[in-house]
Amino acid sequence: MVNDAYDQVRALRFDGARLSLLDQRQLPGTVSEIHCEDAADVAAAIRDMVIRGAPAIGIAAAYGVVLAVAHRQHEGESWRARLQQDLDLIAGARPTAVNLAWAVRRMSRVIEGARDPAAAARREAERIHEEDVAANRRIGEHGADFLEARTGRVRGVLTHCNTGSLATGGYGTALGVIRSLAARGQADAIFVDETRPWLQGSRLTAWELAREGLPATVLVDGAAPALLASGAVDAVVVGADRVTANGDVVNKIGTYMLALAAHHHGIPFLVAVPASTVDGDTASGDDVPIELRDDDEVLACQGQRIAAPGARAWNPVFDVTPAHLVSAVVTEHGPAVRHGVPAAAR
Amino acid sequence: MVNDAYDQVRALRFDGARLSLLDQRQLPGTVSEIHCEDAADVAAAIRDMVIRGAPAIGIAAAYGVVLAVAHRQHEGESWRARLQQDLDLIAGARPTAVNLAWAVRRMSRVIEGARDPAAAARREAERIHEEDVAANRRIGEHGADFLEARTGRVRGVLTHCNTGSLATGGYGTALGVIRSLAARGQADAIFVDETRPWLQGSRLTAWELAREGLPATVLVDGAAPALLASGAVDAVVVGADRVTANGDVVNKIGTYMLALAAHHHGIPFLVAVPASTVDGDTASGDDVPIELRDDDEVLACQGQRIAAPGARAWNPVFDVTPAHLVSAVVTEHGPAVRHGVPAAAR
Repeated sequence: MVNDAYDQVRALRFDGARLSLLDQRQLPGTVSEIHCEDAADVAAAIRDMVIRGAPAIGIAAAYGVVLAVAHRQHEGESWRARLQQDLDLIAGARPTAVNLAWAVRRMSRVIEGARDPAAAARREAERIHEEDVAANRRIGEHGADFLEARTGRVRGVLTHCNTGSLATGGYGTALGVIRSLAARGQADAIFVDETRPWLQGSRLTAWELAREGLPATVLVDGAAPALLASGAVDAVVVGADRVTANGDVVNKIGTYMLALAAHHHGIPFLVAVPASTVDGDTASGDDVPIELRDDDEVLACQGQRIAAPGARAWNPVFDVTPAHLVSAVVTEHGPAVRHGVPAAAR
Repeated sequence: MVNDAYDQVRALRFDGARLSLLDQRQLPGTVSEIHCEDAADVAAAIRDMVIRGAPAIGIAAAYGVVLAVAHRQHEGESWRARLQQDLDLIAGARPTAVNLAWAVRRMSRVIEGARDPAAAARREAERIHEEDVAANRRIGEHGADFLEARTGRVRGVLTHCNTGSLATGGYGTALGVIRSLAARGQADAIFVDETRPWLQGSRLTAWELAREGLPATVLVDGAAPALLASGAVDAVVVGADRVTANGDVVNKIGTYMLALAAHHHGIPFLVAVPASTVDGDTASGDDVPIELRDDDEVLACQGQRIAAPGARAWNPVFDVTPAHLVSAVVTEHGPAVRHGVPAAAR
């Protein structure tokens, strides 16, 4: 039985004066918060991965803009120019997820014409947050419907990285689909890739699921194709940091591997995202900047050096899954199975 | 320039009275040895992965039999029955690699008819060891020849796990092919999957390569398909723990992922093994017992718990790559490109 325990997991809280973020670098060992009081704090928290997940960093960015307006609006005539610097700082904190730029743009438009920019900003940020939770609920139902129609009862499901309450405003995208399946008495076995180097699967997804009595079975990333070959998995469900106009999916490194293997074994490969993740302005995955992070994330594990001295690393955070390997992209508006932008997002 | 620095790396040393094994669980942080004085010590060291790699555990098993003969032959009339218990203990230490059973069988045959079983056993174990090093040299040359013929100059090469001096009697199988390519002025970029959960790639392969001035670029396992898609890799070379009669390859978990991706991108996928790894008595990969190890290897990293409480794990050590995804299996007798047992091993 799924209860509403996921409501207890909140990646972010805003009290009007500061944005408190659950420090996801410390989970599951330590549950602690980082408090952001201005735009620079928020940009640093996003860059340093205190908070991660495309929808969640979009929401954090929106609250960051609220903090920026509160600080800047008393700074005299040039306050809007200084605000713009804050907006650029936030939008540039990480390069790949489109939600970051999307949220800042949306906030910017609202502030521009407002008589009370601070109040308008806060209202809009809260709206973005609430809309995300509501969208996730609908994504979950649409995704579960799609998989049921495609495969019948879903027994085993595999996911990658973390796409749950920690990665969104609440409930989750791909993990929301799994929650919806579980609420229907399906998803008997939930398999989770550990997702090196950051281990979002074993640290975050397993933590979220355990809190609501849905124990995860964790596997090393390289084991996923063998798991699919074993017949234990009826569907693969992942999120995305950006879906481009042609339907390519930019998501956590390792996603492309899953798509290739799912395609090879005839297993549905579903991408679950809010419509804000669909970027109709970018033609294909080849046009998306892929963030390369520090070598040490690969050469160490949980802060402990593992690799031999002298070794270097190749550490792209995301990879590109071509549209033809994707069974459907499901948003809050429903599934899009043709190649290209999901209909509702155009 | 490749020098003979790999000769300094020895996974095992035998002095007649004891077998000293480099403790591969501690590398690269600590270089230390474990000393085995009887069959039980050797079986435990193999089971606990002090030494690993199919050829290396075959050689360790052979020396383990030498120790067993030395102890048992003074135990009266029933010594051969007791010896058989030791042989069974060693052969059963790990289930998947065929070299273990192969080495014990070969030792057993020699001891049976010998007038001086102890001397015969020692001679045979040393012969197995020397033959392995010589075979690796030839595998390296044959593999490099095959890849050159197939792709021209090999610039970037990707490997998985550790198949070098630490996994063999010396030089290595897949890493031997890479050493041979490097000696020809090729393999400008050597990419190594970190190979969770045991991290043989980042811990062992990167260590071996760094010692001879061939720095490795390490990547998380899930990044390999994206690396192949990037065009940086001209060949994928791996070892195997068993090649079955139909040409299926049983190797470290994650190998199947590489084969799928290499096939998809038209990149040669070469399996480099001594002929002793080819098991003509087992029809296909489906018939090979796949070792499942403890959950904690996945739920922790280097002894530090990473996964949320309540999480379980699926931890198969090996996966099966079907023959049709393999460009060639190269042994000391040359490459076999048709599906099925390499010709020279039948």
